[in-house]
Amino acid sequence: MDGADTRRRILDAATAEFAAYGIAGARVDRISQNAKANKARLYAYFGNKDQLFDHVFGELAHAIMTAVPFTPDDLPGYAARMFDTCLDAPDLVRLATWARLERVPAGEFAVELRADTDSKIRLIAQAQADGLVNPDLAPADILSMVMAMALAWSPASLSYTATRNDPATDTDRRRRALVEMVRNAVSH
Amino acid sequence: MDGADTRRRILDAATAEFAAYGIAGARVDRISQNAKANKARLYAYFGNKDQLFDHVFGELAHAIMTAVPFTPDDLPGYAARMFDTCLDAPDLVRLATWARLERVPAGEFAVELRADTDSKIRLIAQAQADGLVNPDLAPADILSMVMAMALAWSPASLSYTATRNDPATDTDRRRRALVEMVRNAVSH
Repeated sequence: MDGADTRRRILDAATAEFAAYGIAGARVDRISQNAKANKARLYAYFGNKDQLFDHVFGELAHAIMTAVPFTPDDLPGYAARMFDTCLDAPDLVRLATWARLERVPAGEFAVELRADTDSKIRLIAQAQADGLVNPDLAPADILSMVMAMALAWSPASLSYTATRNDPATDTDRRRRALVEMVRNAVSH
Repeated sequence: MDGADTRRRILDAATAEFAAYGIAGARVDRISQNAKANKARLYAYFGNKDQLFDHVFGELAHAIMTAVPFTPDDLPGYAARMFDTCLDAPDLVRLATWARLERVPAGEFAVELRADTDSKIRLIAQAQADGLVNPDLAPADILSMVMAMALAWSPASLSYTATRNDPATDTDRRRRALVEMVRNAVSH
């Protein structure tokens, strides 16, 4: 049996399991069964359940950061791309939200993302200096708020969680509202 | 032993337990032990674990809706009050987010809140007709977005979860950023 293929099947099954049940709720038995890989192999590749979650989450977070380029001169466009990414990859938001609830009840969400966050903050500060973004707001607050707005209809929304099954007219209307509200919120 | 007192202790212990561990992760044994109430009494009062969660969540949601008056002519002020409520009652956001992840993966979050949501949407539409709020946006989208902005630093935040332990200068700066960004986002 090909090791790379087995690893991939385990990670895919683990992603689905953690997204559905969270960290505490996930069952290694189910992951192993759905991946058609035995548990000894799973533990050998990824360590215990918490370490397996770290693999899954790290992989997805990296995929998102690469897939959604940050454009400090176009924060509405960035928010719109995050909005579409939530529709295409709802599991990422679910995984991240479980991680927040189960692991980090307060403060900074993920120290692993600090370098990425710091870089975004510097880019926003530059966009403020260039007169593209309201200079009266702290860059970190702008980033938190733009993220929150982009996630307004995400799987963690306390209003409405949008999916690709919603009518396209609703999706388009939400995206337009997001773009307009982010633009107005951060405008100089 | 006083029944009302026991009920209250069970609800308080259940609130803490569900906020910490979610619905699947909560243990009735621990709730019963922390409430100093036996399990038979707990089941007699509140039914099973899911029904106990419904009680806890319904009670807290009602408390919040009453404590945070909705002001369609002052959405920034409403957002600021929600922001402070998240700081004072972080368990509510945690309970709601567990409920979203564990029970309602898509669509409307809580049908129990539909009447309240519909009423807020009508009030926003009226504020638009009165020229107080940008009329180009759907009232439901404005509501989703203002809620998301108010929750940007909540216990479900994927950026930074603020608490009352943070320096007051940070809390004040975030609240000011929230007020200014909501005002600009919804302005006519």
